[in-house]
Amino acid sequence: MKRLPGKTVERLSGYRRNLLGYLAAGNKYIYSHELAALLHITAVQVRRDLMLIGYSSVQKKGYDIQELINTIGEIVDSEKGLNVAVFGIGNLGRAVTSYFKGKRSKLNIVASFDTDPRKVNRVIAGVRCYPVDDMEEIVRQHDITVAILTIPPDFARATADAAIKAGIKGFLNFTTVPLNVPPNVYLEEYDMITSIEKVAYFVKEGQG
Amino acid sequence: MKRLPGKTVERLSGYRRNLLGYLAAGNKYIYSHELAALLHITAVQVRRDLMLIGYSSVQKKGYDIQELINTIGEIVDSEKGLNVAVFGIGNLGRAVTSYFKGKRSKLNIVASFDTDPRKVNRVIAGVRCYPVDDMEEIVRQHDITVAILTIPPDFARATADAAIKAGIKGFLNFTTVPLNVPPNVYLEEYDMITSIEKVAYFVKEGQG
Repeated sequence: MKRLPGKTVERLSGYRRNLLGYLAAGNKYIYSHELAALLHITAVQVRRDLMLIGYSSVQKKGYDIQELINTIGEIVDSEKGLNVAVFGIGNLGRAVTSYFKGKRSKLNIVASFDTDPRKVNRVIAGVRCYPVDDMEEIVRQHDITVAILTIPPDFARATADAAIKAGIKGFLNFTTVPLNVPPNVYLEEYDMITSIEKVAYFVKEGQG
Repeated sequence: MKRLPGKTVERLSGYRRNLLGYLAAGNKYIYSHELAALLHITAVQVRRDLMLIGYSSVQKKGYDIQELINTIGEIVDSEKGLNVAVFGIGNLGRAVTSYFKGKRSKLNIVASFDTDPRKVNRVIAGVRCYPVDDMEEIVRQHDITVAILTIPPDFARATADAAIKAGIKGFLNFTTVPLNVPPNVYLEEYDMITSIEKVAYFVKEGQG
């Protein structure tokens, strides 16, 4: 299968999140229009995405939720799993770690890094925190390929460069500093100020 | 001026964030291609966005950074400012509050809400935390129109409904629960699991 566009991957991840909730609530089947409504998109978009990943077994009562969850997992997840580290275990790092821990079996937060002597060599939010000086060694040792950056902005660039040298292949960057990464490294950036300013703009403009 | 598309507002917010950094580093002018590189977009996109907001005073040495920051502020910010509340002051709520506090003069986090008796009636991350039972009163009293939701998923829907009744006109929803809001309320949702799964997908696929 060809590599999917980023937006499709985002929607597949969203489908799975909602399907897991629907399953937990005791449902076994779901219609495309129900799934679409949960994500504020159209049923046509849902059907198109599922066709793209080769899922076509619609029944009269809708999609089999468990089967669809499994199919999305086969496409989106890495078969052998990926190891993740959180760089900077302040409020945001702890929030991400607690939030994520145990939610996806194929994606494991196995380490965090910090410079604060009160944090290093302790287990924080269920994950061991290592001194940032040991980063390269720990990344190699645990085969960590994904980094979540929640460090202060001043350290972002140098830390990302060192992480790439150590073997990191993908970043989720929560710092306010835009990064540059080589073409073989994937970068996803999220800036919460932008999200809040966007909400404020539409409130000011009256939708909202 | 007509209401701008969401993506344009996101980019304007990103321009401003980067321009502020550039200004703080001692620069006075910036070329469109430099601004574009910071945001990983094209110079054509930058020029198109700035034309859309009526900014055309390019000089040989580039855009005047301070002037451009002011112009973006006039478009994006609310003139009289907007008041924001954080619902749920756990790790993520604290991270958002500390991160945002004092960064934008036209957007003020003036309250947080929580149910935890150890948190209410205290100042946390520089902002007073009120019991959630007083939410409607506090929202009205402080004219709060923007809500940032960092509460546990089980409370998300009921809390959002109550907040809308109290006068909230826009949400940034960090919970895993998709919300439904009436057409006069703006909703922006961010799911960090989706971001991490997207990074992991592209790492697995080899870009990455």
